[in-house]
Amino acid sequence: MSINDWTDERLMRAALGALLRYGATAVLALVAHHGPAEAWQRVAAGDDIAGAADDGTRGGEVPCGEAFAAWAAATDPRRVAEETEQAGLRFLIPGDDEWPGALDELAGCSVGRLGGMPVGLWAAGPGHLARWAKQGVAMVGARAATRYGESVAMRLASDLAGEAGQPHWAVVSGGAFGIDAASHRGALLVAGRTIGVFANGLDQPYPPGNASLFRSVADDGLVISELPPGAAPTRHGFLERNRLIAALSQGTIVVEAGLRSGARNTASWAGELGRVVMAVPGPVTSAMSTTPHRLIRDGEAVLVAAARDVRAMLQPIGQGEELPLIGAARVGDDLAGDAVVVREALPGRGARSLSEMVLASGVPLARCLEALNQLADRGLAAMDGQGRWRVRHANCVNIT
Amino acid sequence: MSINDWTDERLMRAALGALLRYGATAVLALVAHHGPAEAWQRVAAGDDIAGAADDGTRGGEVPCGEAFAAWAAATDPRRVAEETEQAGLRFLIPGDDEWPGALDELAGCSVGRLGGMPVGLWAAGPGHLARWAKQGVAMVGARAATRYGESVAMRLASDLAGEAGQPHWAVVSGGAFGIDAASHRGALLVAGRTIGVFANGLDQPYPPGNASLFRSVADDGLVISELPPGAAPTRHGFLERNRLIAALSQGTIVVEAGLRSGARNTASWAGELGRVVMAVPGPVTSAMSTTPHRLIRDGEAVLVAAARDVRAMLQPIGQGEELPLIGAARVGDDLAGDAVVVREALPGRGARSLSEMVLASGVPLARCLEALNQLADRGLAAMDGQGRWRVRHANCVNIT
Repeated sequence: MSINDWTDERLMRAALGALLRYGATAVLALVAHHGPAEAWQRVAAGDDIAGAADDGTRGGEVPCGEAFAAWAAATDPRRVAEETEQAGLRFLIPGDDEWPGALDELAGCSVGRLGGMPVGLWAAGPGHLARWAKQGVAMVGARAATRYGESVAMRLASDLAGEAGQPHWAVVSGGAFGIDAASHRGALLVAGRTIGVFANGLDQPYPPGNASLFRSVADDGLVISELPPGAAPTRHGFLERNRLIAALSQGTIVVEAGLRSGARNTASWAGELGRVVMAVPGPVTSAMSTTPHRLIRDGEAVLVAAARDVRAMLQPIGQGEELPLIGAARVGDDLAGDAVVVREALPGRGARSLSEMVLASGVPLARCLEALNQLADRGLAAMDGQGRWRVRHANCVNIT
Repeated sequence: MSINDWTDERLMRAALGALLRYGATAVLALVAHHGPAEAWQRVAAGDDIAGAADDGTRGGEVPCGEAFAAWAAATDPRRVAEETEQAGLRFLIPGDDEWPGALDELAGCSVGRLGGMPVGLWAAGPGHLARWAKQGVAMVGARAATRYGESVAMRLASDLAGEAGQPHWAVVSGGAFGIDAASHRGALLVAGRTIGVFANGLDQPYPPGNASLFRSVADDGLVISELPPGAAPTRHGFLERNRLIAALSQGTIVVEAGLRSGARNTASWAGELGRVVMAVPGPVTSAMSTTPHRLIRDGEAVLVAAARDVRAMLQPIGQGEELPLIGAARVGDDLAGDAVVVREALPGRGARSLSEMVLASGVPLARCLEALNQLADRGLAAMDGQGRWRVRHANCVNIT
């Protein structure tokens, strides 16, 4: 798109996006109430915009109108558009084909003092955000993850994004070290879809140590941000960002997270948005599993141990697979009636004659013999040359 | 007690107990319907006792009346009593001071084809079964436990049985290798209470490899069995035994268990009896955590990660501690209003003058200064000799 193709609304929204870093909730509320054009006018005029966040939970932290007016005066909408084009980004706004309808659900939705529908999204990468988000699953967790957590995240992401014979999910995460990076990498490993949602301008990858991962995600997937080129990450920005991760997916999986991890915040957003919240357990001796365990214990998250658990939770009811019983079934578990009793009566060592089996089992002779033959057919008992019966130990067979 | 002190009822019950190994459910149902004296008469007379198990789910596996009559003829009640006394055991029956009222709840309760109230219990050890069971917690799990599982079980048992300043729980388990043994040992380690519930006669410890553990539990705690001296363990016997473990405790904790572990059966009994079912999570990569994870995932068990979680579940509502938030709280998390915004406006590196802080935060001068002083009081900000403000990084403080 050339900058000349930017409509007034797109320019306004980009400029408002550039103001988000100074007080996102107030700006978002203003746009929600008045639309982008009037919102911009009010900010530029120095109106007290704290009142726009009128749900009673916000306002206390909103800078005064004068400060916002100064920031607005320093923000040229066309300059933001130019920087967007120069950075090779696209700027998505409501009404665009690629705008995910799911983001509308953020209107009026808040966790703590934060919230609201984004005014627009900067994006790069070959993916189609609206389509991918429909089949998106968020994976979040600690930066200081353990090797266990990283390997579980990578495996889970690979399975969700690329398992043969299964619907493929887009792995949505935040591009941080630890669980985020492992999740993106797991999806990329199987040439699957992955979306990186950032709390900074997409022209300056953060954290810098993940720059090559950032490029891989941008090259083969999608990177998005509601902040313009040049924006540096802030603590509030990370929390605001988390709502996008939750909204752009059908469910959020917390893989590993200490007690104070931002992953809990993303899980809260997912819950608030009616998405499925899931958590992966780990050793109770690991501090990094504290939050997943708490979420599960308190009924705020469903335990998931593998991709099949996630699929079962996310697939629409009726289409979903039943939560499966995976593992080994033992031969003979389906025996019933006489066969069970007679089998119990077989000696642990050595052998018994038929009459001894009748006495030991309490099952009359004809039925006892029938049961023994049934057991022999199943490979569970054997008769020797003297007509004496003994146990045959069956191995486990895998039914999966 | 001398054998001459055994009442007729006690003798009958001991003899019926000796018949359990041939078909426990039918014998238990017969006693439940007719009382011990008539039950014994009917068995001795060769009545078809399958009909006693009249709930429609049983019967198919019950030996014919003739077999039972033969076994009864071979069972001398006074001989069972003598063997009991010789083995240094006591035989508990309903009405005894030590008989746990909780066992009555097993009447009419079944899992699969098994169930019913025991006719009596052989016991040894200094503990008082009725009193201990009132504050009993069952810990069950895999024989082939991992080191993780065993160490978690031992720690959990120690904490439940002997944590200072907390009510002490009696750890109830089955005396097997793995989780059972680790649980008993954890309780013994802190000189706590533990009850071993066995599926064999108490004169012949099973498994033989745990003989020294068995002696320790018998010396300092309690060992019990519904089978008489001389009885060898059977597969059905283990399943029948599990109902006693569940009934003699307020809740059952599954620590580690593969998909086919008997621990699932104990958990089913606990659920059937209205007891709390709990499970300890572990690595999703461990087959031994499959069953705990499934139980939690499917809502059949509550996740417990430590003794405090167990206490919170087991204590009567109103008396219980709130599920606590354990971990590190960060200084400044309770800040509100201007202080939050001003704190955010402090530069990551270097320092800012007061007027720069006003511009960066958007908070008017007087309020901005007040907020900075508040932050300084909390150790979160500091002013240098030039009147410039900088961040002070607070460490985490442990609130526990």
